[in-house]
Amino acid sequence: MTHGETTSRGDRLQAAEHALDAIDPAVRAVHLGGKLAVRATRPVQTSEDLALVYTPGVAEVCAAIHAHEALAYDLTIKRNSVAVISDGSAVLGLGDIGPTAAMPVMEGKALLFSELAGIDAYPLCLDERDPDRLVDIIASLCAGFGGINLEDISAPRCFEIEGKLRQRLDIPVFHDDQHGTAVVVLAALHNALKIVGKELAGLRVVVQGIGAAGVAISNLLMAAGVRDLIGVDRDGIVTPRRATARDPILRRLAKQSNPRAVRGGVEEALAGADVFIGVSAPNTITAAHLELMARDAIVFAMANPVPEIDPALARRRAAVVATGRSNEPNQINNLLCFPGLFRGLLDARARTVGDRVKLAAAEAIAEAVPVGELTAERVVPSPLDPAVVPAVAAAVAKASRVAD
Amino acid sequence: MTHGETTSRGDRLQAAEHALDAIDPAVRAVHLGGKLAVRATRPVQTSEDLALVYTPGVAEVCAAIHAHEALAYDLTIKRNSVAVISDGSAVLGLGDIGPTAAMPVMEGKALLFSELAGIDAYPLCLDERDPDRLVDIIASLCAGFGGINLEDISAPRCFEIEGKLRQRLDIPVFHDDQHGTAVVVLAALHNALKIVGKELAGLRVVVQGIGAAGVAISNLLMAAGVRDLIGVDRDGIVTPRRATARDPILRRLAKQSNPRAVRGGVEEALAGADVFIGVSAPNTITAAHLELMARDAIVFAMANPVPEIDPALARRRAAVVATGRSNEPNQINNLLCFPGLFRGLLDARARTVGDRVKLAAAEAIAEAVPVGELTAERVVPSPLDPAVVPAVAAAVAKASRVAD
Repeated sequence: MTHGETTSRGDRLQAAEHALDAIDPAVRAVHLGGKLAVRATRPVQTSEDLALVYTPGVAEVCAAIHAHEALAYDLTIKRNSVAVISDGSAVLGLGDIGPTAAMPVMEGKALLFSELAGIDAYPLCLDERDPDRLVDIIASLCAGFGGINLEDISAPRCFEIEGKLRQRLDIPVFHDDQHGTAVVVLAALHNALKIVGKELAGLRVVVQGIGAAGVAISNLLMAAGVRDLIGVDRDGIVTPRRATARDPILRRLAKQSNPRAVRGGVEEALAGADVFIGVSAPNTITAAHLELMARDAIVFAMANPVPEIDPALARRRAAVVATGRSNEPNQINNLLCFPGLFRGLLDARARTVGDRVKLAAAEAIAEAVPVGELTAERVVPSPLDPAVVPAVAAAVAKASRVAD
Repeated sequence: MTHGETTSRGDRLQAAEHALDAIDPAVRAVHLGGKLAVRATRPVQTSEDLALVYTPGVAEVCAAIHAHEALAYDLTIKRNSVAVISDGSAVLGLGDIGPTAAMPVMEGKALLFSELAGIDAYPLCLDERDPDRLVDIIASLCAGFGGINLEDISAPRCFEIEGKLRQRLDIPVFHDDQHGTAVVVLAALHNALKIVGKELAGLRVVVQGIGAAGVAISNLLMAAGVRDLIGVDRDGIVTPRRATARDPILRRLAKQSNPRAVRGGVEEALAGADVFIGVSAPNTITAAHLELMARDAIVFAMANPVPEIDPALARRRAAVVATGRSNEPNQINNLLCFPGLFRGLLDARARTVGDRVKLAAAEAIAEAVPVGELTAERVVPSPLDPAVVPAVAAAVAKASRVAD
């Protein structure tokens, strides 16, 4: 059967049905009909109910908010709502699949917000690619939301989009692929350092992969106190000379990182390094690379679904190894951050989410592993550990109140 | 206390608290914390659950939708979701109160969609006024929705916005202030005609108030078979001469209505009229006006909160009287239409909502009053009558399937 212009509607429907049947039955079963429901928190059984929740009663509530906009946090869902927003440009390992096909991920994320943190999150997948128009659209639709979780937006567009939204909006904006990953990496690093007895300030860190996650990880690690960090990508070490022709994000990273002005590629960067953080591509690091590192090396190989180096191989040389995989020890999973982070931001009615808040979240995640249970194979809590969300939420709310 | 630039943050918060305290306690109680919740339809208690609803399982679902977009109706919330969208430009009797203050109405509407029709509706209040930009924004955000309910958008902007969206989108777009009102008016008229023994084709109808509702009512009544309809507003009868300088909507109405070419104001229009439909302003019609009408006159005086004429006074002269008020017989309430209408549209996976569907909805609403119970004081069902939604949904789904 062809899928050209002459394919009939019937053929297309049949092909779609076949594709539906081909999905793993357990996965299909949980997706049929969608994964979210919107429900009333007030019943409407009588005309008296109706007069309270809708007209005429609602007019008084609207008028009060019109006079005092801050009352939206008391009298509407803004108090507890997060928009999960994507343009579908960089979805999981699938890449640019567009807004409709991105929906299952954003629904899943909203579902996790609800299940783990009691947050009312709604998925919005936007059919727009121009960064400025995306900023205008997102800025226009946030009246009813207490926070914006950006998701799966391709780099370098994500930097510009998030940056402009942060300047324009008075609610927190957080691109999870950047900052969620950075927070959990920092949490894992805090605990890994306890294992090897090293400190942030004295570390030599190499970050391989300078996309959304790599840039955010580098910035947050430096904000946390790392002084010697080198960024590397396919073209080698990020230096001011290389960065001049590219975007402002890379220029800033080149300026703030690599204080020893190391030149070359990943081998030169790894010489004597304490920490390797990979957010790049499968199988790009070898055992020989790890031999270049300092004693008690820490290796976070997070390329998905296949890490930069086989974790079993890495464990032979490194003191602590983490990956993005759920079937390996030390899974760097954003789920450790975003539900508790937004719970705390909403609880504090935060207007922004800056470094102070992210650093507090990372410490709270690290401390959720009890001291007695901390081992090289357990530097982060389990993603579904019920202690994590309340701990992160409390730390974030406290840091937000100080920051505001 | 002043509210000028020098007002301190503390003063503003105190003023807001006072405004909150001043709200009717029963109304305040149902609004505190908002009226909606977003909930997961699948539990996430184990890492196996997580692997199904989120990564890695979800990737297969995204890929299937990317290959066959129609599967979004099977595998995402699109199947059952409606966006309730407003710009806050014409909210209830409050007028232009902006997007944040409009939220309680849109939340209330979403709550009613859920409670009455099991629809997952989400309120989106947009901070944008330019019609073309509003169209672009709404078009960009509808990937996850199966329908768009526009609400409280001011005329004449609403005509342009809805018209352009209908052309661009492949999901139904319905401005409830226009078409919801029109459908319920037509339903009430069907039953009122049974009381007085008249037929649509022979009627003389006057519509006073040519805003969002007035235009839609006029168009739907003519689509239903009314041949002699006159539109009147503050400037008198709508005629081609008057309409030339104004918008295309008014030009079209002028061209299609007033076949006897009556000139003048409401008195001239009402001479010999069978039906008066007011969607204009309080107390604009007198008993003397009604004396001009034909025998067995039908008067729908729907100005809010005070009708065009006191209903008790109108009942002395007219055979059937309806208003927008819940404490009078025959309440013309949009709630009779929108839950069942969208239930039917979603059930049919409708791509549009045209006259055929609206006419079917009006007939279903009218028929929801059992023949034996039809009286001059009961030409429409109660807004919370549980028989209405399934009847309207079935009629709309059937008409949509024929139309598509």
